[in-house]
Amino acid sequence: MTELTRDRPLEGLRVIDLTRALAGPYATLLLAGLGAEIIKVEDPRGGDLARENSPYVGRDGITVERKHSDDVSISHLTRARGKRGVSLDLKRAEAREIFLDLVRSADIVVENFTAGTADRLGVGYAASQAVNSRIIYCSLSGFGATAPEGGKAMDIIIQALSGAMYASGGPDEPPVRIGIPIADMLAPVFSVIGILSALEQRHRTGTGQHIDVSMLGALTSFVAIENWSAMAAAGMQARTGLTVQRLSPFGVFECADGYVALVAVHEKLAEGLFRAMGNPDLARDPRFANRDSRVANAVALEATINAWSRRHPTAHVVAALEAEGVPAALVRHPEDALRDTRVVDRREAVPVSHPAYDSDIDLRTAGIPIVFSGADTGFDDVMPIRVGEHNDQVLGETLGYSADRIAELRAQGVI
Amino acid sequence: MTELTRDRPLEGLRVIDLTRALAGPYATLLLAGLGAEIIKVEDPRGGDLARENSPYVGRDGITVERKHSDDVSISHLTRARGKRGVSLDLKRAEAREIFLDLVRSADIVVENFTAGTADRLGVGYAASQAVNSRIIYCSLSGFGATAPEGGKAMDIIIQALSGAMYASGGPDEPPVRIGIPIADMLAPVFSVIGILSALEQRHRTGTGQHIDVSMLGALTSFVAIENWSAMAAAGMQARTGLTVQRLSPFGVFECADGYVALVAVHEKLAEGLFRAMGNPDLARDPRFANRDSRVANAVALEATINAWSRRHPTAHVVAALEAEGVPAALVRHPEDALRDTRVVDRREAVPVSHPAYDSDIDLRTAGIPIVFSGADTGFDDVMPIRVGEHNDQVLGETLGYSADRIAELRAQGVI
Repeated sequence: MTELTRDRPLEGLRVIDLTRALAGPYATLLLAGLGAEIIKVEDPRGGDLARENSPYVGRDGITVERKHSDDVSISHLTRARGKRGVSLDLKRAEAREIFLDLVRSADIVVENFTAGTADRLGVGYAASQAVNSRIIYCSLSGFGATAPEGGKAMDIIIQALSGAMYASGGPDEPPVRIGIPIADMLAPVFSVIGILSALEQRHRTGTGQHIDVSMLGALTSFVAIENWSAMAAAGMQARTGLTVQRLSPFGVFECADGYVALVAVHEKLAEGLFRAMGNPDLARDPRFANRDSRVANAVALEATINAWSRRHPTAHVVAALEAEGVPAALVRHPEDALRDTRVVDRREAVPVSHPAYDSDIDLRTAGIPIVFSGADTGFDDVMPIRVGEHNDQVLGETLGYSADRIAELRAQGVI
Repeated sequence: MTELTRDRPLEGLRVIDLTRALAGPYATLLLAGLGAEIIKVEDPRGGDLARENSPYVGRDGITVERKHSDDVSISHLTRARGKRGVSLDLKRAEAREIFLDLVRSADIVVENFTAGTADRLGVGYAASQAVNSRIIYCSLSGFGATAPEGGKAMDIIIQALSGAMYASGGPDEPPVRIGIPIADMLAPVFSVIGILSALEQRHRTGTGQHIDVSMLGALTSFVAIENWSAMAAAGMQARTGLTVQRLSPFGVFECADGYVALVAVHEKLAEGLFRAMGNPDLARDPRFANRDSRVANAVALEATINAWSRRHPTAHVVAALEAEGVPAALVRHPEDALRDTRVVDRREAVPVSHPAYDSDIDLRTAGIPIVFSGADTGFDDVMPIRVGEHNDQVLGETLGYSADRIAELRAQGVI
């Protein structure tokens, strides 16, 4: 998939991946793209639930329903890149022994079961640490590894609890469901920071540790960077919709064919905006002549800008603003964003396809948004299309099990 | 500020911090909370622009305008935690020499000047690497370190370009400005992953490298995890506002005094929802009797749920749903989210105060959302209230400059 000419930064590290759905698999996807070897463990009966996410891709292209046995959920296709897959029925004692053999050979374990489940299954930190004191074991959960159970941690639930939903939208409007799964994505990013920090500490101490990241905590820490209580105490409106009136003009404005974001907070930028509008005299209008007056008359100013921008296509508005040095940007559709050459050239968004079938559809997905001067990033050309696809390779070559033993485990339904 | 009883994971690493505003300082804040030593470099004439962000906190409590010389912008108070500050006028050759002395003593440099500026100032990767081949040098910019200039990278501009704004809201509604500075915050998180990955590689190779993270790339990679083009090809609506009809019932519903998020995708959950609504017979209504029919009749189902939820306060709706095992959550105000004991106990959101003055206002800000079993996280009790506050300490003790030399540098306006 990726031509790698240089080492990746995490080359040589092995990760045992017990994760499912999105949050956990995105953590190990980042580790894979940074060069770690990932062994994805799935239940032999069905595997990762994300394999059932519609739409699918396969010999008939993109379909809402699975039609052929080798049709693959696009969720799985994008999240399993660069990982090898083994199957283990963790309810079986023999499977737990195989898991512990994997742990003995590994640096890192990542899991996102409901809090407490990994320990109950005998594949938690305590069991792992007992066989490998250097293991770094990361648990990703809704509310923390020691939280009492109850309350499923779906993205929308965490968005609601964190304040992120409330923070978007206008003062008298409903909350806003953020259209990207921000809670599912942010916790894994912090998990990777935790894992890499523990790795650094292991270089000093020789021992691993348990890393515990909560979806609610990760997203709430982001929300907490805004000074909510101070703004309220200072009488500032925190929730202001498409524009921020205390910085006026600042926000998103309507055009004939879409929307444009612009920022003209300072004097020079406001003058540039007024010239772009073909009305430089607005800079001498007492309502808009300085920063304080623009803020005081923000509603009138925003109406004046919208009256101009609504008459023009976005391309005209952006070009006119840029010509005057005013920061401005088209509000783009995600598909356009994913084709921006600035992003494509840096492989921050990357093409993806079914390993066996070409598709007319231009599928793109998340890359590794970090460019290293002395290393490559990217994914090995491997992925478990079937559950347990790499059982022979991993149990045979990596762990050294005999072909007979593997056949027996398979016959017994352990793998 | 924090009682640390154990080592932090990044103890012993030194970071030279050239960053300003939010994105860069949040990267070094994370490194500080993980235990790295941060030396924040500011221009002697004014320092970090975030020092001018209203509101302020000081002897008069919270104020919109700065009233006293030791009033501190809450932005600075929260972002400068655990950092020491020196002043350097980087336009002066002597200051560049001091910077290079700092680099010789350090492991990491972080900067978020406009692309190309650090090199022009003589404090870029090339100059740093020439004096310390082990240095890991991270550049954080709007569009990447080698992007041609132009196009200021404010959060709202990147939100617009990335597709994140478009992705939220309903199909015929305007885009949504996400109320947390997601573009400003996400790039630094990936910067820290890049820095820690390079650190791991340095353990193997002995040499550092340049890390280059783009705000547009970081946020676009998040947007790219959704299968936009595949959903379009499969005829699925991607932008669906407060609810997702293809998973119905799934979304945010209105109550008498607020909003509640709920998820009842599967059979068992839908039955629980209908019982919570006091109308278990809905499970036998042919419109809602199975998953396909609920999706086909999503508009009617959502109206039925809203007709129920609007009659009750959020507390009742959440309790009724939880009693039936249906995932549900109040859409909370950020201030309530920051007081959740689950978040407070794990220090994912933490109190913050002016070092000299108590305040009646309950100020809270971002913590480190990672819990380590074998390490603490948290911030040293230090912060540069004044620009250059730790000049004597850093230049004298850390670099070993004589008091005379420091006095001369100060007299010349170099520091």
